[in-house]
Amino acid sequence: MEKLEKLYEGKAKKLYATDDPDILWVDYMNQATAGNGEKKAQIEGKGSLNNHITSVIFDLLKARGVDSHFVEKLSDTEQLVRKMDMFPLEIIMRNTAAGSFAKRYGVEEGTPLKKPILEFCVKSDALGDPFITEDGVVALGLASEEEMAEISKQARAVNAALLDIFSKIDVKLVDFKIEEGKTSDGAILLADEITPDTCRLWDTKDESGKIEHLDKDLFRRDLGNIIPAYEEIYGRLKSLAESEGIAVDD
Amino acid sequence: MEKLEKLYEGKAKKLYATDDPDILWVDYMNQATAGNGEKKAQIEGKGSLNNHITSVIFDLLKARGVDSHFVEKLSDTEQLVRKMDMFPLEIIMRNTAAGSFAKRYGVEEGTPLKKPILEFCVKSDALGDPFITEDGVVALGLASEEEMAEISKQARAVNAALLDIFSKIDVKLVDFKIEEGKTSDGAILLADEITPDTCRLWDTKDESGKIEHLDKDLFRRDLGNIIPAYEEIYGRLKSLAESEGIAVDD
Ligand SMILES: Nc1ncnc2c1ncn2[C@@H]1O[C@H](COP(=O)(O)OP(=O)(O)OP(=O)(O)O)[C@@H](O)[C@H]1O
Ligand SMILES: Nc1ncnc2c1ncn2[C@@H]1O[C@H](COP(=O)(O)OP(=O)(O)OP(=O)(O)O)[C@@H](O)[C@H]1O
Ligand SMILES: [Mg+2]
Ligand SMILES: [Mg+2]
Repeated sequence: MEKLEKLYEGKAKKLYATDDPDILWVDYMNQATAGNGEKKAQIEGKGSLNNHITSVIFDLLKARGVDSHFVEKLSDTEQLVRKMDMFPLEIIMRNTAAGSFAKRYGVEEGTPLKKPILEFCVKSDALGDPFITEDGVVALGLASEEEMAEISKQARAVNAALLDIFSKIDVKLVDFKIEEGKTSDGAILLADEITPDTCRLWDTKDESGKIEHLDKDLFRRDLGNIIPAYEEIYGRLKSLAESEGIAVDD
Repeated sequence: MEKLEKLYEGKAKKLYATDDPDILWVDYMNQATAGNGEKKAQIEGKGSLNNHITSVIFDLLKARGVDSHFVEKLSDTEQLVRKMDMFPLEIIMRNTAAGSFAKRYGVEEGTPLKKPILEFCVKSDALGDPFITEDGVVALGLASEEEMAEISKQARAVNAALLDIFSKIDVKLVDFKIEEGKTSDGAILLADEITPDTCRLWDTKDESGKIEHLDKDLFRRDLGNIIPAYEEIYGRLKSLAESEGIAVDD
């Protein structure tokens, strides 16, 4: 596989074309951002950790019957993925109240939710990623009714599988954001990344009673260095994968 | 029926108990508010017009098979309604992009929507009436899954009936807000009011090409006096009701 021209540089990843029109080459960067890019930093080791973490998560999901765009990890910071036509949506699943949800409804962070909550935001830095209903997505032509039904189904399946994965490594999956796209042959598939940048992960090994963040909230809220936390997540995921017979190469 | 103690004074209406525990006495006030109460005015004649308008609309809805809390109009500004246990929700239906929707997604006011959009906000002045998903309503215990299904069904039925009503009087029903509640015997029913305070109504008789507001946007946006507009809406609704054999007493 040949790496060709750069197609896009986002806040966390660079996308390159390859000699296969259906495959993209992704390079995970060290950049960390928060608050729609208002806060920014370079954090040595972050790109590599996220590339490792999302790769092993995609493999663990696959073992649970959840497909994704992931093809293979190439190097420390690089992976191949299926090229998708992305839906301009942030697809958010919440199991526990935290972050903007807790603030919006005046409930305490950590309040369990009676059922998982699926939310959608339009991916638009200019508009500030506004909340949108499923009706609204269809009405604005961002996805069809059938596509939304499939996206919702997949989001709930991803949540169920991730809850299983994280509970096995003593981590509480509070909430997460995914993105979905369509392959050239029209299949809807989980894409982008699943990392501590895009999930809220709380250590349940910790018994101090206070929340032990193993995710980007450490950076967002200036609570400490993310690297040891991301390493901890990767170490536990790697052990789980190996225990399930999934080959993990560092 | 006897009017007893005042139970509640909102921004637009006062509620009184009656000697029937299942019936409330509602008094429509002249107060107009906008922006969560930030803008406020007394507008002579508004209470009476809204009482007349919502009464005839509830009658027109009933003729179309859509039930509500409405019992009867008592006087210029007063009516009897069934007492409800209200869901703390603003239930919003949109047929055309306008107001906060247009702003939120950066689309022009007046853009037709491919399908009617149903939105929910938590009724909370303190939280600023935040947007909420149906999952969120259930997760926070504001209504059950079955109640939300019934509320959504009723909201769509109200929209269909109102679209029929307003199209017959040359008015474009852009969007509206309703509230729903539960009677003492557990029936879910349309409650509160349906007036130019709670609907966006654009005159389609006007052929100037610019939007002719017949609703509270006149007040919100300082576009003119609301009274002639509300009178126009009432006059047309009254003619329609009479043409359908519904008795209207001024
Ligand atoms: N399989 C895929 N095919 C095509 N694009 C993808 C795929 N997976 C993810 N993307 C897109 O890659 C882009 C780069 O990722 P990155 O996370 O750096 O972007 P971002 O800064 O978070 O968001 P954006 O730049 O889109 O506002 C994102 O726009 C994402 O939607
Ligand atoms: N049938 C009903 N039974 C009980 N309460 C009702 C009924 N219909 C409407 N209400 C409630 O009457 C209250 C008074 O109405 P009004 O429109 O003045 O209030 P508001 O200022 O808009 O809102 P609120 O005071 O609730 O923040 C509202 O809270 C509404 O939910
Ligand atoms: Mg991203
Ligand atoms: Mg009101």
